[in-house]
Amino acid sequence: MIDDPIRDYHPDMTDELEQDPRFTEVRLAELVMPNRTNHHGTLFGGHALGLMDHAGWVAATRCARRTMVTVASDRVEFKVPVRAGQLVELVALVTKVGRTSVTVGVDMYAEDVADGTRRLATSGSFVFVAIDDEGRPTPVQPRAGSPVHPD
Amino acid sequence: MIDDPIRDYHPDMTDELEQDPRFTEVRLAELVMPNRTNHHGTLFGGHALGLMDHAGWVAATRCARRTMVTVASDRVEFKVPVRAGQLVELVALVTKVGRTSVTVGVDMYAEDVADGTRRLATSGSFVFVAIDDEGRPTPVQPRAGSPVHPD
Amino acid sequence: MIDDPIRDYHPDMTDELEQDPRFTEVRLAELVMPNRTNHHGTLFGGHALGLMDHAGWVAATRCARRTMVTVASDRVEFKVPVRAGQLVELVALVTKVGRTSVTVGVDMYAEDVADGTRRLATSGSFVFVAIDDEGRPTPVQPRAGSPVHPD
Amino acid sequence: MIDDPIRDYHPDMTDELEQDPRFTEVRLAELVMPNRTNHHGTLFGGHALGLMDHAGWVAATRCARRTMVTVASDRVEFKVPVRAGQLVELVALVTKVGRTSVTVGVDMYAEDVADGTRRLATSGSFVFVAIDDEGRPTPVQPRAGSPVHPD
Amino acid sequence: MIDDPIRDYHPDMTDELEQDPRFTEVRLAELVMPNRTNHHGTLFGGHALGLMDHAGWVAATRCARRTMVTVASDRVEFKVPVRAGQLVELVALVTKVGRTSVTVGVDMYAEDVADGTRRLATSGSFVFVAIDDEGRPTPVQPRAGSPVHPD
Amino acid sequence: MIDDPIRDYHPDMTDELEQDPRFTEVRLAELVMPNRTNHHGTLFGGHALGLMDHAGWVAATRCARRTMVTVASDRVEFKVPVRAGQLVELVALVTKVGRTSVTVGVDMYAEDVADGTRRLATSGSFVFVAIDDEGRPTPVQPRAGSPVHPD
Repeated sequence: MIDDPIRDYHPDMTDELEQDPRFTEVRLAELVMPNRTNHHGTLFGGHALGLMDHAGWVAATRCARRTMVTVASDRVEFKVPVRAGQLVELVALVTKVGRTSVTVGVDMYAEDVADGTRRLATSGSFVFVAIDDEGRPTPVQPRAGSPVHPD
Repeated sequence: MIDDPIRDYHPDMTDELEQDPRFTEVRLAELVMPNRTNHHGTLFGGHALGLMDHAGWVAATRCARRTMVTVASDRVEFKVPVRAGQLVELVALVTKVGRTSVTVGVDMYAEDVADGTRRLATSGSFVFVAIDDEGRPTPVQPRAGSPVHPD
Repeated sequence: MIDDPIRDYHPDMTDELEQDPRFTEVRLAELVMPNRTNHHGTLFGGHALGLMDHAGWVAATRCARRTMVTVASDRVEFKVPVRAGQLVELVALVTKVGRTSVTVGVDMYAEDVADGTRRLATSGSFVFVAIDDEGRPTPVQPRAGSPVHPD
Repeated sequence: MIDDPIRDYHPDMTDELEQDPRFTEVRLAELVMPNRTNHHGTLFGGHALGLMDHAGWVAATRCARRTMVTVASDRVEFKVPVRAGQLVELVALVTKVGRTSVTVGVDMYAEDVADGTRRLATSGSFVFVAIDDEGRPTPVQPRAGSPVHPD
Repeated sequence: MIDDPIRDYHPDMTDELEQDPRFTEVRLAELVMPNRTNHHGTLFGGHALGLMDHAGWVAATRCARRTMVTVASDRVEFKVPVRAGQLVELVALVTKVGRTSVTVGVDMYAEDVADGTRRLATSGSFVFVAIDDEGRPTPVQPRAGSPVHPD
Repeated sequence: MIDDPIRDYHPDMTDELEQDPRFTEVRLAELVMPNRTNHHGTLFGGHALGLMDHAGWVAATRCARRTMVTVASDRVEFKVPVRAGQLVELVALVTKVGRTSVTVGVDMYAEDVADGTRRLATSGSFVFVAIDDEGRPTPVQPRAGSPVHPD
């Protein structure tokens, strides 16, 4: 089994949350194409941020079953460069559910195709808010018995 | 837990294969954008085929740790239309390892964002071959103790 | 004249069909860009499938003058690798018109820019169904005197 | 047969040129997607220019069998708006071969999917020059007996 | 200050126009990616034309505050090749306002990242027309006191 | 003149920096297309982050004249939703030059095409590091007399 220590990065993840179907982790894998990298073959940070937001958005949407919009991204540090020809895998996990918002932790791994070496390239946190048809924040309606944390 | 009966579709998946780290399933989720759909908001079949091949390629590459190229796709039937605004999730699982080839079963689910309803939209099988630096087929080198099926 | 033996691949194409304006072949040419190929410069199978479906869709739509959706793709075998810098040309030809469906044969050629060498890279068949505004299958209305084959 | 009066727009096309395999017309068809149009559903002129250049480039490259680069585009007038959901078909034909350059006439048709109505949306002319490995202009080497017009 | 002699190319630009807020120049910078270039690393002319039209469209839209569509592009000559890894910067400036049309001059510079060397790669002129909700040409309503030139 | 109070957001910008040619602000404008927005027509946060990083990268590269890679993005808050059909304009300005790093402040404005209304949608800060051919951090070589701030 591939070992992703996402819970080490999100220590506030409780056992209860872990069992809840709304908090199943989301995984996206993508090959890094040359048109996503600079002349030295290094992935552009902006593309990585876009992938992280997308993975987080899928996780938040599945959790809230609402139209979600990004309202904030935390500071993101790029620890190791990602290269053309590597796979990136995004692992997104809801870490907090507020009244109208859902917070998602997203880790991005860079994986070498040839030998399977895998390193955490970056890790961040994104906040999404549920909106109604007029675009105003609307409560996230949890299913009965689901844990809801205050904002 | 989201229930994906991929093993029902691939009954030749043995318990042994299921335990092998090379056969971890690959998941890709993507929001269906309006530029992927026709005027009635239905996903183009060609985009679905592209996503299925990509998911299969990631699974085959992770299994063989070689440069893999698609050599065949099986007949694919599109059972339910996929719509703009839905999520598609691709679930890919290696079903057979030959001398130079890897076969991957790929299921594509259409998931309604609003209520989480999820249907199998299509299911197919893709064959990939490992190539060397000159582009010639090259043996898939399994790790010690891994099950290898003859072509 | 560039010689494309598409009719050899589709021997059920009658002279009558060949004269019918609805069955004019569709041609799409495209340069293979590096972002469509793997690290060895070989075109991804999924991109080829997407192009084949698109060419088939144009041919089916022109034939039926309806909103068409892909319902099936036949087994496709990739005979020769296609490389970055080559041209691919898709040649699509309607081979069968049913009550609500249109079947299109699609050949994909890889053409070397430098010397014009041209090889059939792959060949397949796609089935499209006409849908009405509610997304239900609807009859393909042939023009008077047009040949219509039963499904 | 679809009637494209490209030769009316390019009266300098001789019978001899018309017979030459290097001057086979190039056709590209593409569905106009919503991400190529403004809020009123009208195709952006810049995307049309890009498609016209691409069709011309394929025709010039096939004619010269050299690496070709665009050196000029003539004035292009957009006669009718092209709409999302229409097909555009590009028809490109070499009209002149100089010592190092190839000139291509390109017509773009807008075709209504529902009824097959087809109008010439725009027509233009692009000049390409053959370059060598250092990027310098290099003679277009015509095959024996091919007509070559002076620049 | 980077010196762009756009006014030398558009000598009909008056001091009055230069002061008008509607005529603030529009700048777009973009890194040239490998998927925009041929095998010799030279930018495709069609992509350059697309960028020029887009910059011109932004300038025309800001000037007229109407839905604008391209109706003509002037002859464009590509003076120097643009290479992958260079920056291109588009500089667009309204040069004429007619009753329903706005004309924009667009210069495209190729800038070497390593040393900042900057050359004018091409220069052209695009005409846009304001359209109403039915797609018919509609007057460009200038703000009080703004200069309006006859068509 | 369009009034962008970027200096209010970056009060550490000295007059000396403002005069330095390396610190010319970078502007990118782009129309928000429907394929960048969700079903309610609101721009995806990930696309905004990608555009902000790209604008910052151009500014950092122009300042350092080195290959730059993103090493961090600060917390970004999305103040107002951006809608399909609006223009976004990115304004990027170098705010600090370290030994091997360049920090860039980036503001993103949403501009209504119809009336020119313009609001600051979000504001953030990105850090880039100069790398050499082996991908190791390398000093940013300022031109003689340029201000260099310690990391």
